[in-house]
Amino acid sequence: MESYRNLEERYRRLADLSGALSVLHWDRSTVMPDGGAEARTAQMATLNVIAHRMQTDPELGDLLGVAEDRAAALDPWQAANLRWMRRSWRHATAVASDLVEAVSRCASEAEMTWRSAREEDDFAVLAPKLETLLARVREVAEAKSACFECPAYEALVDEYDPGRRISEIDACFAELEAVLPDLIENALAKQSRQTAPIRPTGSFPPERQHALGRRLMQILGFDFNHGRLDVSHHPFTGGVPDDVRVTTRYAENDFSHSLMAVIHETGHAQYERGLPRRWRGQPVGRSLGMTIHESQSLLFEMQAGRSHEFITFLAPLAREAFDADGEAWDAENLIALHQWVERSCIRVDADEVTYPLHVILRYRLERAMIADELQVADLPGAWLDGMRRLLGVSPDGDADGCLQDIHWPSGAFGYFPTYTLGALAAAQFFEAARHAVPDLGAAIGRGDFRPLLEWLGENVHGWGSRYEPGELIEHATGRPLGCEAFLAHLRRRYLSA
Amino acid sequence: MESYRNLEERYRRLADLSGALSVLHWDRSTVMPDGGAEARTAQMATLNVIAHRMQTDPELGDLLGVAEDRAAALDPWQAANLRWMRRSWRHATAVASDLVEAVSRCASEAEMTWRSAREEDDFAVLAPKLETLLARVREVAEAKSACFECPAYEALVDEYDPGRRISEIDACFAELEAVLPDLIENALAKQSRQTAPIRPTGSFPPERQHALGRRLMQILGFDFNHGRLDVSHHPFTGGVPDDVRVTTRYAENDFSHSLMAVIHETGHAQYERGLPRRWRGQPVGRSLGMTIHESQSLLFEMQAGRSHEFITFLAPLAREAFDADGEAWDAENLIALHQWVERSCIRVDADEVTYPLHVILRYRLERAMIADELQVADLPGAWLDGMRRLLGVSPDGDADGCLQDIHWPSGAFGYFPTYTLGALAAAQFFEAARHAVPDLGAAIGRGDFRPLLEWLGENVHGWGSRYEPGELIEHATGRPLGCEAFLAHLRRRYLSA
Repeated sequence: MESYRNLEERYRRLADLSGALSVLHWDRSTVMPDGGAEARTAQMATLNVIAHRMQTDPELGDLLGVAEDRAAALDPWQAANLRWMRRSWRHATAVASDLVEAVSRCASEAEMTWRSAREEDDFAVLAPKLETLLARVREVAEAKSACFECPAYEALVDEYDPGRRISEIDACFAELEAVLPDLIENALAKQSRQTAPIRPTGSFPPERQHALGRRLMQILGFDFNHGRLDVSHHPFTGGVPDDVRVTTRYAENDFSHSLMAVIHETGHAQYERGLPRRWRGQPVGRSLGMTIHESQSLLFEMQAGRSHEFITFLAPLAREAFDADGEAWDAENLIALHQWVERSCIRVDADEVTYPLHVILRYRLERAMIADELQVADLPGAWLDGMRRLLGVSPDGDADGCLQDIHWPSGAFGYFPTYTLGALAAAQFFEAARHAVPDLGAAIGRGDFRPLLEWLGENVHGWGSRYEPGELIEHATGRPLGCEAFLAHLRRRYLSA
Repeated sequence: MESYRNLEERYRRLADLSGALSVLHWDRSTVMPDGGAEARTAQMATLNVIAHRMQTDPELGDLLGVAEDRAAALDPWQAANLRWMRRSWRHATAVASDLVEAVSRCASEAEMTWRSAREEDDFAVLAPKLETLLARVREVAEAKSACFECPAYEALVDEYDPGRRISEIDACFAELEAVLPDLIENALAKQSRQTAPIRPTGSFPPERQHALGRRLMQILGFDFNHGRLDVSHHPFTGGVPDDVRVTTRYAENDFSHSLMAVIHETGHAQYERGLPRRWRGQPVGRSLGMTIHESQSLLFEMQAGRSHEFITFLAPLAREAFDADGEAWDAENLIALHQWVERSCIRVDADEVTYPLHVILRYRLERAMIADELQVADLPGAWLDGMRRLLGVSPDGDADGCLQDIHWPSGAFGYFPTYTLGALAAAQFFEAARHAVPDLGAAIGRGDFRPLLEWLGENVHGWGSRYEPGELIEHATGRPLGCEAFLAHLRRRYLSA
């Protein structure tokens, strides 16, 4: 047990470092003056270097070996903890430090160039930097592929969604690709027979949006003794489980965007809050990768937040918050507005019905790039073809096309699938919760999220990383991750009378 | 040069760690929800442990030796940098890690106990914890005394005011103790012949105080692209030179307290901002200990901020900020208010004339405690005696007596003298600046701090830690630190007609 205890101590220190980094990142995104950027970059780089040294310390490898030899003495949580330690050690040591640094440097450069390329609406500006970066990322993928004995792309996905197989992604995405085009067509046809919703207009002062956002978070069970709501350029959830930092942004002429972002981020936040206290700071106490994380945000936003029941509950609160009135504020109108389907070019603005097709396009393209079957120079053309084929729309330029996302220029290949896998998991979890808690919809309609949080706590949050994502989903819902619950949800919400 | 370069790299990393710690501390004091305390304590402890390991790494000692052997090749800044590295290495290694940890643990406990003791107004509650802590601090002092070959108390002072000799403190404090009682008497007599000032009453909303505070900081030359103003329980200046975090607190019924705190902290902040850019992250680029730091805050607050000229400039801004009017807002009244002398029991509320006597009392007591000539149990009595003798006042209880300061329970022995040495240095710097810039008072009266900042930049800020504090003062003012300028300032402000 001594080696295992020593490992726990080392990973606790690593968790402290990563918590410190999370606070530094939050500060940079919310309150830091621009002039502090250089110093902050240096601070964060140093903490990352220290963490990397701790993770690749040869003593750590030895301790893992000894602890594994004596693993029979560990209880199931400890055993799972040890497995995650080994896994993170393998991710850290699979790639030489030089390559890690090279990727980080290339990604910084590509990301900076991406900002100007997007502004100039010209992919050619980014292409050379992206090519260099991609070459390095492929080296990482090859190294991890050798270490994990799995396909190169799968090794990249593993960082974001541990244990996920390409075959599972392929099966789900093939089904969605087969079903969604018709489903969208039918949803649009049904929608066209209804009165188009009116968007509430007016000025929505940020202070009032903030007050409403906080009120909503409290309704969603968020404890402000253990977190905050602030403003950043892009909404995100940061901090640590006992001090969760949620952010949103406010547009004066639209309150809905920010509010939905708050609900979405609160889903992430409640997952962090619900992680097992006993295992704080240990790998087994962490959240379980981006598919499960996104399932929680989408469960809050898409399954619960945009439901008929919840928008009906929300409508009078919104009217009150903005001293507003008129038919635009009727619950029925707000429901139609928050369930509006539209074929568009921009992923982050897409509704839940068309969203998976945006993801599938990116998945196909990034797999082809990692496999060296698609060259960076051919990306804009491939993007255009894909958008036409999958969604029937054509972006006006690169900024609305293959330059719209930061993921690739920042070196994140293998991340995109988790958005849609998360949506599938959200639907599957919510379906299981509705079966287990018969009056769940009614409770949500009263603004009572306690039954939902209780089910999530018992079946998802409280398990931390005790299982792999696939196992957790099976435990909680009785079957492996699939499209069934998601498609049933879409049909119910968008096709039924 | 290779060993020196390697050292620069290591100290750059240490500076990044200390910058990260400073941001984490700022966050805890300003925005962190209470529920985040435990996680934050762990994060900061881990960063401190890592920093301590880096500072006591045997390789570092070897590198210092090699670099010192080749110091002839270094330029004067590099040579000074190397000397500070050696000094901080000696401070870090003089004391065994066990003892460092023991002090830190005892201090945490004593500080917590101090909070309740102060609330209960009962020193006996704190005494046992303070005794244990003091014993450990004495061990530290002995160890450092052996290492630095100086008296034990002097070794403690060295952490806060590098190179300061007890003999210098004794000389200054003896002169102040001889002169101040009469000076106070005379100032009070003169004051009693004048109309007593009226305190502006009303409600001063924090937003307006904040706006006025920001305006004032801008007048004092503060660049909000490189810093912020926020609220904390006690005003402080944190962050790093390119991202300085100033805080204050607001009382609804008194705007002056907060405003003077903002001016005081901006003095600290401008020192950090003005440190030599070329040496960011290196020991020689850092500020020069607490005496010089306090000299900058007191120069801003006491020398410039409470001057006739500046309060005259400030009065209409304050009236405007609070939509106020009436005789309480006349410049003459506000000047009298901000130059009011009063014998009191509480150091932090004391005016600049009586303040040194508060410090001298603490200096005598803490020296006696470190020398084992005063027992903790006898502290309340000794305090009472000292207050009567030095200031002619008797605190009602321990809370207004020896429990009022956090310094001793937090393990800070040797810090107090820097408040008064800082006040002496502030007067001496300001006198030199006034000689060098003949119309300095007039510029300050126009709210133009550029000439003052320029002088400070050239003579204090820009030198970083190129010299020791004593040398810097001599360079900037032409003579060693003494009481002359300070006493002349007091006589001018408080005794002349």
